[in-house]
Amino acid sequence: MLKRIVMTITSAAMLQYAAHAQQAIGGGTQVASPEIHDDHTVTFRLEAPEAREVYLSGDWMPADGWTPGKVAMEKEESGIWIHTTEVLPSELYGYVFLVDGLRVNDPGNPFLSRDIATLTNIFIVAGDPGDLYRVNDVPHGTVTRRWYDSPGLGMDRRITVYTPPGYECSGESYPVLYLLHGAGGDEEAWPTLGRAVQIMDNLIAGGKATPMIVAMPNGNVIQDAAPGEGSDGYYTPRFMVPKTMDGTYEETFEDIMKFVETHYRVKADKAHRAIAGLSMGGFHSLHISRYYPDTFDYIGLFSAAILPNQNTESKVYQDIDSTLARQMENGYKLYWIGCGKTDFLYNNNLQYKEKLESMGMPHLFVESDGGHIWKNWRIYLTAFVPQLFK
Amino acid sequence: MLKRIVMTITSAAMLQYAAHAQQAIGGGTQVASPEIHDDHTVTFRLEAPEAREVYLSGDWMPADGWTPGKVAMEKEESGIWIHTTEVLPSELYGYVFLVDGLRVNDPGNPFLSRDIATLTNIFIVAGDPGDLYRVNDVPHGTVTRRWYDSPGLGMDRRITVYTPPGYECSGESYPVLYLLHGAGGDEEAWPTLGRAVQIMDNLIAGGKATPMIVAMPNGNVIQDAAPGEGSDGYYTPRFMVPKTMDGTYEETFEDIMKFVETHYRVKADKAHRAIAGLSMGGFHSLHISRYYPDTFDYIGLFSAAILPNQNTESKVYQDIDSTLARQMENGYKLYWIGCGKTDFLYNNNLQYKEKLESMGMPHLFVESDGGHIWKNWRIYLTAFVPQLFK
Repeated sequence: MLKRIVMTITSAAMLQYAAHAQQAIGGGTQVASPEIHDDHTVTFRLEAPEAREVYLSGDWMPADGWTPGKVAMEKEESGIWIHTTEVLPSELYGYVFLVDGLRVNDPGNPFLSRDIATLTNIFIVAGDPGDLYRVNDVPHGTVTRRWYDSPGLGMDRRITVYTPPGYECSGESYPVLYLLHGAGGDEEAWPTLGRAVQIMDNLIAGGKATPMIVAMPNGNVIQDAAPGEGSDGYYTPRFMVPKTMDGTYEETFEDIMKFVETHYRVKADKAHRAIAGLSMGGFHSLHISRYYPDTFDYIGLFSAAILPNQNTESKVYQDIDSTLARQMENGYKLYWIGCGKTDFLYNNNLQYKEKLESMGMPHLFVESDGGHIWKNWRIYLTAFVPQLFK
Repeated sequence: MLKRIVMTITSAAMLQYAAHAQQAIGGGTQVASPEIHDDHTVTFRLEAPEAREVYLSGDWMPADGWTPGKVAMEKEESGIWIHTTEVLPSELYGYVFLVDGLRVNDPGNPFLSRDIATLTNIFIVAGDPGDLYRVNDVPHGTVTRRWYDSPGLGMDRRITVYTPPGYECSGESYPVLYLLHGAGGDEEAWPTLGRAVQIMDNLIAGGKATPMIVAMPNGNVIQDAAPGEGSDGYYTPRFMVPKTMDGTYEETFEDIMKFVETHYRVKADKAHRAIAGLSMGGFHSLHISRYYPDTFDYIGLFSAAILPNQNTESKVYQDIDSTLARQMENGYKLYWIGCGKTDFLYNNNLQYKEKLESMGMPHLFVESDGGHIWKNWRIYLTAFVPQLFK
């Protein structure tokens, strides 16, 4: 009898069921956007019959200083605005629409990245390096969001941890890369904007990287977690979280290492620890690696914010020369600095390079095109990781 | 000398640094939205000086069938459109703006939920039940996205697993709730739209739920993972993924149980297994629990899609009467059915209830207000979980 019930209800219910799910608040007809063609041109479409002016703004377009590029879209009779790009080189791109001056995400594309408080649609053009940023059919590592106790900060804090394919069952111990975000970022930055999970999976699958744990902590000491993921609830994230560059993070970084080294199967020695970060995270990596001068064999500064410290009182920023000298004396295997030639921090990084040269402190300085952008940080991560733990 | 560099770079760099981060593609001035007042009225704002007509559409507004409610916003001289609600009862709400007919997310609010291909802004009004859906300062469980091998489907598949606070260090074994999503959903549905992580943390912290593992698998057998998280890359998700209700999932569900029971410290017996799901996941729970008739002591059907099967050939849907009878004979502790009185599946659920009554099969049938909506599924989860493993 149940079978009869199960089988005889008319398909009207199924249609209604389908209708429901298409009808999230205010949802309408969707047009295909973005459509990535085989020749790597890309067509964008937006159904907005009432709009007077629609632009497409994409991060592949030449920007005017900090003002992103944009291109006017054409309105078709159907009320759909359309634009097809030139051939785009392989990359992970971001874009939005500007509709009568209003910044609007693409309703045809549910994939977004959040950078501080701003959401940008993303898509990937296949090839090199785009294929490194996508999920391929390779063995996958595990991504965990969990909470650790930070006695130094007096709170439980959230951290994202990548463990490599096979970690759970291998019984082996692994090296650890501590991977730090920039100002305005959090423990979600590297796994989302940075595609760190896909990069690690793909580099390991390609035999280019040693299987390792990647710990992605939150570098804002007044936050327990990323916006919306912690006890502060939902609020509009701001760029510069207070106290993130006043020495507190560096001083309490031991809490993070202790957590990782007591809760994961790791090789807990200098030869198996790396630390790297972008922008503010590069600043943190610079100072953490010299403040704990016999702790890391691998240091990566990606567009590092070598900047004035807000708080000169912190003991972290005392004796910089002598602690750097001690770090050099203790030895390390790689001190890697990457910076874009148009990055506003380029000169600062150049000065730091000269400083290291004058000290005779070994390092690798890699220049790239472009500025202070995630495109570069993904490339730096991809260049840095294969050099670790070899 | 480094210290001099670190200390003497002018703060111009810092300002530039700040300017950069505010300037993600096309970002502009942001106004506070939504602003939740102490009296639980909520003000929404959108800066759109060029717009002719702006509506706010929120899921607290009376809908006309499947058409969501909306209210016109007022334009201020500043070009900011504004609307303040009446007092809203505690809840997690969703909303969007309609700007000259275009569905637009709130640029002031980076918090969204994805339902199939549709992104909706969310906010929480404090109280009961809203406080259950937010991250509170309580011990937190761990949320893991990992991949398991499904020999039955011939692929590696992604799963979201919640382990309760203390799992990693307790050495204890735990019961498991398998929590299934609806059509159009995936392994991200319960952790995001369903707030399952926050509900579990808060119920456990309040002493209302037994610490348990919650396994949230992907119920679409042709997918290895949620859209954008699997090897299909980025594409526009559709409502009804093929083959999700043809018996394949039920038949291969053993792969999921086997993975959980061999990779987590679980009490692997019937007394410590529960299965529940919403809509299509309720359909799956109904059939899985009778197809494996001596496996689950706790069954939860939330607005279950008791619907015609596409594929009558599957052995899963044979002998329904006899397998249900066997399930009853084998015994279980809770067969919980929840459905909203205005749900389009209400009558189907009522018929099923009558069917169980006619068989003398014990169950609990709980009616709620409202229809086929996440608000109800969060409430059902909150009602169901405290009854488990007691």
